[in-house]
Amino acid sequence: MPNVKVLPLLEPTVEPCCPPLTERPLTAEEAERTALMFKALGDPVRLRLFSAVASHEGGEACVCDISDVGVSQPTVSHHLKKLKEAGLLTSERRGTWVYYRVEPGVLAAMGQLLSPTAAEV
Amino acid sequence: MPNVKVLPLLEPTVEPCCPPLTERPLTAEEAERTALMFKALGDPVRLRLFSAVASHEGGEACVCDISDVGVSQPTVSHHLKKLKEAGLLTSERRGTWVYYRVEPGVLAAMGQLLSPTAAEV
Repeated sequence: MPNVKVLPLLEPTVEPCCPPLTERPLTAEEAERTALMFKALGDPVRLRLFSAVASHEGGEACVCDISDVGVSQPTVSHHLKKLKEAGLLTSERRGTWVYYRVEPGVLAAMGQLLSPTAAEV
Repeated sequence: MPNVKVLPLLEPTVEPCCPPLTERPLTAEEAERTALMFKALGDPVRLRLFSAVASHEGGEACVCDISDVGVSQPTVSHHLKKLKEAGLLTSERRGTWVYYRVEPGVLAAMGQLLSPTAAEV
């Protein structure tokens, strides 16, 4: 029997990629990837859902915890999916509920993008 | 003659408003204002233009310095206007050229939005 290595299946995520915006102009490719994250937060309902997950006890929340944003449940689910696609949230089903969590490192990486360069501090 | 005080005319800007997204869920009003800034950076061309201005020598750039992003001059101007409307850039005409500069405090305020709260550090 051949020694077959099974590679883990990785969900596609938008990895933070870039130096601070103040350091040098982004390349087209860097901008394409990074704009996806900003765009995902560029909607008021998504931003509220993201902050609801990010600030929830234990760093995770189920839909039942965070759906008080004045839109229908399907709309909440739609926006949570967009946040996942942008690599900002991860999710895990446990029993009846799907739990959402901020993708580790994303806040730090986005914060770094927006940090002033050493020369300007 | 009455003692008339002339108030300075302020251009409308989207002031950073909010605590870190990890601290508590944003209110609807906070999310409306903040989403505008993220949305402005949620387009690859605008993101490239913003980083070109932010990283340019002296912290400012004229259109002549930053229009190498593969779109037409009117499109560049359109996107720069959007960045101004979102409160991310300011502009000043000097002679032939309009110079753009990152609105002071905007990067720090957006960075703070994305910073982890003390409890999570």
